[in-house]
Amino acid sequence: MSAADGAAGSLVKADLTRLSLNQKTTNSWGVAQAVAGCVRKGIPAIGLWREPVQDIGVERAATLVRDTGLRVSSLCRGGFLTAAEPAARQRALDDNRLAIDEAAALGAPCLVLVVGGLPDGSRNLPAARERVADAVAELAPYAGERGVRLALEPLHPMYCADRAVLSTLAQALDLAELFPVEQVGVVVDTFHLWWDPAVFAQIARAGGRIASFQVCDFNLPIPADALLARGMMGDGVIDFRPFREAVDAAGYTGDIEVEIFNADVWAADPDDVLATMIQRYADLVL
Amino acid sequence: MSAADGAAGSLVKADLTRLSLNQKTTNSWGVAQAVAGCVRKGIPAIGLWREPVQDIGVERAATLVRDTGLRVSSLCRGGFLTAAEPAARQRALDDNRLAIDEAAALGAPCLVLVVGGLPDGSRNLPAARERVADAVAELAPYAGERGVRLALEPLHPMYCADRAVLSTLAQALDLAELFPVEQVGVVVDTFHLWWDPAVFAQIARAGGRIASFQVCDFNLPIPADALLARGMMGDGVIDFRPFREAVDAAGYTGDIEVEIFNADVWAADPDDVLATMIQRYADLVL
Repeated sequence: MSAADGAAGSLVKADLTRLSLNQKTTNSWGVAQAVAGCVRKGIPAIGLWREPVQDIGVERAATLVRDTGLRVSSLCRGGFLTAAEPAARQRALDDNRLAIDEAAALGAPCLVLVVGGLPDGSRNLPAARERVADAVAELAPYAGERGVRLALEPLHPMYCADRAVLSTLAQALDLAELFPVEQVGVVVDTFHLWWDPAVFAQIARAGGRIASFQVCDFNLPIPADALLARGMMGDGVIDFRPFREAVDAAGYTGDIEVEIFNADVWAADPDDVLATMIQRYADLVL
Repeated sequence: MSAADGAAGSLVKADLTRLSLNQKTTNSWGVAQAVAGCVRKGIPAIGLWREPVQDIGVERAATLVRDTGLRVSSLCRGGFLTAAEPAARQRALDDNRLAIDEAAALGAPCLVLVVGGLPDGSRNLPAARERVADAVAELAPYAGERGVRLALEPLHPMYCADRAVLSTLAQALDLAELFPVEQVGVVVDTFHLWWDPAVFAQIARAGGRIASFQVCDFNLPIPADALLARGMMGDGVIDFRPFREAVDAAGYTGDIEVEIFNADVWAADPDDVLATMIQRYADLVL
């Protein structure tokens, strides 16, 4: 990836109306810088993260995005709902209610949920999954009343033990479908799902349950911090267009968020990252 | 893991009749050493690898195991069937026929197939999967005529790009079921499948298709060489007994192979590794 990638004539022709910058992609920027970056580059939407939002306060962040006319495509993230110990579980539920309130204040249509992995020392995967289901049942009406949809994110199976016991879109839909569609949806993230032989059938099944569509590439080798294997589109192994077409065919008309955790991307000039992101989005996703 | 783990009274009581040492677990040993180690420890079966077998010659290896009365539970491995280029594809098919011949000479009931990842530079996952299916169709009758079963191994999705475009047991069974049961089966490997919410239903579906059952743990963090994330049972996150019970309930009565790729295990004294393996097998798998 180089800055030159972004300096191209095709930019003026690309349709950016559905493009959203997930704030994590420009990890060194606070909310104000990310919002300003989107405005400079003509990116109409942003996916916010709780920590940088809290750094400046929810009201200030909400004002910033409202004043620029940006859409908030999602708030990342709630979840981590697998604690077995009652006090820890209560803390998690309370924090998720707060996250729902923040999403509502920001005008985010959905709160992305990374549901959590196995508690330390536990090997009881079915029990962890049950606690997730119970917690979603507690949170869903609260979210619905505030106009926020819980977006269950199946994570790549390599994160099953430590991040999310929800690993496939089928599994996420099995859970989401227990609740009203306006309360609980799912995230389709190419990085997490690209390998799944059932994914296109499940995207078709998902239909109106798709609350968020996130794109980024799967890079090899998997780095020492496995969370940072996410790459700029085109740098890895994923064929994006079939995913975008499948999500479109399922009826999803929302934003397409680019969310990249990657040490090299984070070390680059964020303005160059945005330029490359726009170019790759136009060339590989649209 | 320490040598002391293995020096326990429960060893004499443990039923080792189905235990098999996959040779990779004692990676520093050649065939003769691994065979002698199994005999010393009362392990009745061994899973062999092609490279160490070829180091001493197939006939010599076959004689070694026959003379000691060990069962050969499997030969690892064939596969790597995703090349698109005709000459590379032909080489892969020829090499797999040779591997089938080797399995037959060794008395191995099955040849484990790691089917291969995306060819360099390719992002066409469906096409790679089709080439695997075509190659299995070419190889299955050849294997069947020699009394060797092809054992399709679904690998953990983190290896989809570079090792195996077969990622779930359901997907492996969809392919295996196209062929006679004596020609094509599947491998159930706890490391690769533990995260799959559908795995127990698929094990039940597999029934007589289960050609090999391999156990080892899933360790965190994933090491720099992701292939080495496999761990000694008890060192990671997997609950083994439900897997063993499910495989038994599906009708599988064959060997239970312990196959561990792990730098620490490989650096330890192989005799200590065997002692620990027997103890953990008795405590956690049986």
